[in-house]
Amino acid sequence: MSLPSRATIYEVGPRDGLQNVSQAVSTDAKVAFVDALTQAGLSAIEVTSFVSPKVVPQLADGADVMARVRRRAGVRYPVLVPNEKGLDAALAAGAREMAVFTAASESFNKRNVNASVADSIDRFRPVARRTLDAGLRLRGYVSTAFGCPFQGDVPVEDVVIVVQLLADLGCHEISVGDTIGVADPAQVRRVVEALGARFDLAHVALHVHDTWGRALANVVAGLECGITTFDSSAGGLGGCPFAPGATGNVATEDVVDLLHRMGVATGVDLERLVDASLAFEAATGIPLPSRVLAAVRARRSRAGCA
Amino acid sequence: MSLPSRATIYEVGPRDGLQNVSQAVSTDAKVAFVDALTQAGLSAIEVTSFVSPKVVPQLADGADVMARVRRRAGVRYPVLVPNEKGLDAALAAGAREMAVFTAASESFNKRNVNASVADSIDRFRPVARRTLDAGLRLRGYVSTAFGCPFQGDVPVEDVVIVVQLLADLGCHEISVGDTIGVADPAQVRRVVEALGARFDLAHVALHVHDTWGRALANVVAGLECGITTFDSSAGGLGGCPFAPGATGNVATEDVVDLLHRMGVATGVDLERLVDASLAFEAATGIPLPSRVLAAVRARRSRAGCA
Repeated sequence: MSLPSRATIYEVGPRDGLQNVSQAVSTDAKVAFVDALTQAGLSAIEVTSFVSPKVVPQLADGADVMARVRRRAGVRYPVLVPNEKGLDAALAAGAREMAVFTAASESFNKRNVNASVADSIDRFRPVARRTLDAGLRLRGYVSTAFGCPFQGDVPVEDVVIVVQLLADLGCHEISVGDTIGVADPAQVRRVVEALGARFDLAHVALHVHDTWGRALANVVAGLECGITTFDSSAGGLGGCPFAPGATGNVATEDVVDLLHRMGVATGVDLERLVDASLAFEAATGIPLPSRVLAAVRARRSRAGCA
Repeated sequence: MSLPSRATIYEVGPRDGLQNVSQAVSTDAKVAFVDALTQAGLSAIEVTSFVSPKVVPQLADGADVMARVRRRAGVRYPVLVPNEKGLDAALAAGAREMAVFTAASESFNKRNVNASVADSIDRFRPVARRTLDAGLRLRGYVSTAFGCPFQGDVPVEDVVIVVQLLADLGCHEISVGDTIGVADPAQVRRVVEALGARFDLAHVALHVHDTWGRALANVVAGLECGITTFDSSAGGLGGCPFAPGATGNVATEDVVDLLHRMGVATGVDLERLVDASLAFEAATGIPLPSRVLAAVRARRSRAGCA
C-alpha cells in the first residue's frame, strides 16, 4: 500500500468535543486549551461555534474565546455557524473560516435541525455567499455518513449527493462524519472510493468516532484510499451524544501517533499535544479517553517503559 | 479486499488478563467468568497458568479453577505451562491443551525468563514431547514480535526464526504477539506476509494489545493478509505490565463487533459476552476498558441509541 508522506489533522476538541461535555468549562481553560494546541503544532483548530447559547450553552462564550486565543500565522481557526446570526457574530469575532453542517441521513437532519437535507443546505446559502464574498473559507460537515441513530444504514449515494450539494455551495473542504462511530474499514473504503470517483479527495476530510473502537482502523482505510485530512479531538474529548458514557471523537493523540508510526508526517509534536490534553484534564477534571494519552502518561510516570 | 467468512477468537482474559491485574480476584469470580465466556460461545478460552505462585500469585488457584469450570464439548480450554513442574500440575488438573511462551526479542527473553530465545525453546522440549505424546495440543506464544520494551525494534527475520522453532517443537498454533501494543498496520502486513511465505497462516494467531490504540487497525491488517485466529481479552481485561495505567490486551468485544460488522462470523454472541464482562466487573470492581462494552452499556441504559 502506498501512503501519503503527509496528512493534516483538523482539531475539533475545543468545539465538537466541548459541545458534548455536560460539565461547565471556564473561558480561561478553553483559551489555554486552544493556545496549547497551537503550541503543539496543529495547523487547523476549530475554536468554537456561534450557535444559540440555548442550544449549546457550553460554547456561549465563543466570542470571548475567539478574542482571546493567540492565533499563529498560517494556522486555521474555523468556527461553526448555523445561520446568518451566527455568521454575524463569527465575523465580529474575527473568524476567517466558517463551518456549516448538514447530515447524509434525512431522519437525522429532521430531528437535528427540523429540516430536510436539501432545506438545510438552502438555509446555508446566504451564509455561504457572504463568507465567500468576504474572501473567507467555508468548510462543510456531513454527519451520519456511515450510519444514523434513527434510520440505521445510510446509502453511499446519499453521502455523494450531500457532498455534491456542499461542494456546489462553495465549501473548500467537506468533512464526512461517522457521527455514531459505527463505520467499519470496508465501509470506509466503499464510501471514500465513491467520493474519490467524483471529487478531489484533497478537499474531503474523514471525521471518525471511536464509539465502537474502530476509529483508527477507519483512519487507516481512509488513508489507504486517498484521504489526507482527518478530524480528531485532543485527548478524545467529547463523548457520544446518542450514547452517554460511550466514546466519541477519535483522539488526536491516537491519530497522530498512528500516522507518525506509519511514516506519515503531521507537523504535530506528540509530547506537546499530550501536555495540552493533560493540562486541560487537570484544569477541568474531565477525564480524557485517549489510549496514547494513557500510554504516554504511564511512560512519563515510570522510566524504561514502551 | 476479500475477507474470510469466519474467524476464531482465542480468549485470553482469564489468564493473560488476570495475570496483569494487581487486585486479588476470588476463585469463584474466575470460575464464573470462564463459564460465562463459554456461554457466550467462545471456542477457545485460556483458563489459567501453572507457573510458580511466587511469580504470578494472581493465578495460584489455577488447579481449583480448572477443576471447577464447566467445560463444553468442542471448546478448547488451554493453560499456560512454563516447565515440567507446571505441566505435571496442568495434567493433574485435566488440561487438554498446553501453551508455552518465548519472545522474538533476545533482550526481552533474557529479562523475562533469564535465557536466550534458543535456550528457552530447549527448556520446553520435554514439555512439548510429553504433551504431544499424551495426544494433547500445544500452543506457542511469541511475545515482542512487533517491538520490545528493552531493545526497541525487532527484525521480521527474528520473528520468522522463533515461529519456525515453535513449529519444529510441534505447536499446532503459534500466537505472534505485540506485547507492548506498538505495532502499526503496515508493520503487521510485513510480518504476516513474511510468515505467510513460510507457514500455513491457519496455524498462526495474532495477539494484539491496544496500548497505543491501534489494536483493531492491526486486526484488520492481519485479517486482510490471511490471519483467521485472534487473541483477545473479554472487556480488555489486563493492562500493560510495562506501562502501568496503559491499556493491554485488545478487548474481545471490540474484535467480535468489528469482525461481525465486516461480515466475518465468530460464533460469539456479543450480548452474552458483554454480560460476562459486566458480571466480572461487578464481582471484582475491576474497570474494563473495552469501547464496545461502554457503548453497549450506554445503549442498554438508554433506549433509542446507536
